[in-house]
Amino acid sequence: MAPSGARASGEDSLIARYFRPLATDPGAFNLIDDAAILASSGDDLVVTTDAIVEGVHFLPGDPPDTLARKALRVNLSDLAAKGAAPAGFVLTLALRKVEETWLKPFAEALGEDAAHYGCPLLGGDTVSTPGPLMISITAFGRLPPGTMVRRSGAKAGDRIFVTGTIGDAALGLDVLRGGKVAAGLAGDAVFRDALIGRYRVPEPRNALATTIRGHASAAMDVSDGLAGDLAKLCAASGVSARIQVDAVPLSPATQAALARGAASLETVLAGGDDYEVLCTVAENRLAAFQAGATAAAVAIAEIGVVVEGQTVPTFVDGQGRVITLSRLSYSHF
Amino acid sequence: MAPSGARASGEDSLIARYFRPLATDPGAFNLIDDAAILASSGDDLVVTTDAIVEGVHFLPGDPPDTLARKALRVNLSDLAAKGAAPAGFVLTLALRKVEETWLKPFAEALGEDAAHYGCPLLGGDTVSTPGPLMISITAFGRLPPGTMVRRSGAKAGDRIFVTGTIGDAALGLDVLRGGKVAAGLAGDAVFRDALIGRYRVPEPRNALATTIRGHASAAMDVSDGLAGDLAKLCAASGVSARIQVDAVPLSPATQAALARGAASLETVLAGGDDYEVLCTVAENRLAAFQAGATAAAVAIAEIGVVVEGQTVPTFVDGQGRVITLSRLSYSHF
Repeated sequence: MAPSGARASGEDSLIARYFRPLATDPGAFNLIDDAAILASSGDDLVVTTDAIVEGVHFLPGDPPDTLARKALRVNLSDLAAKGAAPAGFVLTLALRKVEETWLKPFAEALGEDAAHYGCPLLGGDTVSTPGPLMISITAFGRLPPGTMVRRSGAKAGDRIFVTGTIGDAALGLDVLRGGKVAAGLAGDAVFRDALIGRYRVPEPRNALATTIRGHASAAMDVSDGLAGDLAKLCAASGVSARIQVDAVPLSPATQAALARGAASLETVLAGGDDYEVLCTVAENRLAAFQAGATAAAVAIAEIGVVVEGQTVPTFVDGQGRVITLSRLSYSHF
Repeated sequence: MAPSGARASGEDSLIARYFRPLATDPGAFNLIDDAAILASSGDDLVVTTDAIVEGVHFLPGDPPDTLARKALRVNLSDLAAKGAAPAGFVLTLALRKVEETWLKPFAEALGEDAAHYGCPLLGGDTVSTPGPLMISITAFGRLPPGTMVRRSGAKAGDRIFVTGTIGDAALGLDVLRGGKVAAGLAGDAVFRDALIGRYRVPEPRNALATTIRGHASAAMDVSDGLAGDLAKLCAASGVSARIQVDAVPLSPATQAALARGAASLETVLAGGDDYEVLCTVAENRLAAFQAGATAAAVAIAEIGVVVEGQTVPTFVDGQGRVITLSRLSYSHF
């Protein structure tokens, strides 16, 4: 598609057919120009970029509609955590071939999510690759000048919250790979499907963005595992944290997998792909933050407290014993 | 690197070492947050995205410093054609492995270009891939509200200009592949190297951006071949064009390859990868446009005129005969 990806005949017409309907913002110029415009509004513009790669972030057989949603939502999740309202996105698609049977459901699902989250397609580039499918999205959000919620604002005494539930996506990936979780939940198709769904299609918490902006002292989204991402937030803020593992919100499916020994706490806490918001809230903002979450209908759970220090966060169980995690997060290399 | 690409240990430290020095803009937060900020300035923000893929846009053996420059410059070229001043970029790197011998020259060259063109790194994502290396950049530019130069403003009677020389990059690729051009220029290492250089490292015309914004009626950069890209500009403007092929500016190396029958005019006019600016200028702006180009020290050549009609542009030779091109541009699929 245009923004500099305009190509000849066959590709152009497919792109036009499938992606032009998504370019609802006037700044996208119907995808017939080389660039898009984000008009001046007096707001700061938040920019985030995240790519998903076949065989790394999704599996070769994953349905195209789920890939479209995941690619956009992992970026929407960043905007939510930063407290920004979605403004649009650009898409780079690296494809082995242009197939209508793949492009049609991909574009339709992308369009549905773009409309639902108010984040229109502004442009993109489509390139051919002999290798794995890759979907790279750069997304934009707006917020009042100077109000982006950083990783670096957490202070000792602040309470630590996460949205939704943690660990489901990592367990869903294990199910798709036929691992221990698949075996442990062999008789529970509903649980297996729920975990797979959480891996394939995250639920970004954009409804909570203004509450985060108004009341969180620091925030980020959990993409590489709660333990590792919390360690990054603490490092950026120059603090440490103490997490009550029993307070980490778990879905019924994940609880079942843990109870049956089919999954480890480490996979849950460090597995990644959660795309929930992790944030810290000062004590005098707790009531307002919780009221905002209730109004936004986003589930939040208080899981611990920010403490002074430079050490990695401590995880303690219901008996107050420290749990040692051999790894904190997923690493690409 | 951060913007949501922050990963564990090994990757983080390499990214920090090589890419943090490039994140000179305060809005990049030293790459330790999930997102970057483009501060409100009252300007419109121009957004463009272009990816380059190993085996498609560059060859497996191409030096990493040239890849860095090409990946950024193909985007800078879009900003130049739209009349925008560079504001920054985000980078998605899909790598098979993290190698210092590759990352160091890549990041150094990227940093040099970022500094030279005033386009700092704002963030990015680094992902592992089992497939070809891919570098995707989304670049941002600023310009006064409503002043972006579109593809769609060309009017009958406007003169058509290109910057620099056309065809060199396509011939350079042929040299790298050991094709006819390589054979025809076997005795001319200087010519061969010049063409290879033009393929590997384009010369974006950002110095001409304000002149384009001030005086061009329509503009785009030539990335997929002059013939095809001109056809796109004409289609967007609802006009046609008549090009004097003799007036298309050619480098000495390309002239030699043509004279020896080692390259076809079609490859020159439709080969792609030029990254020169194609623009149209109304007659009453010609003098100002030319004066601006002289002041910016960017070579421009008048190659034809916009005419009424809906047909694809006509190419005529020195005798006024119409030249038929069997293809207009490079297509990915």
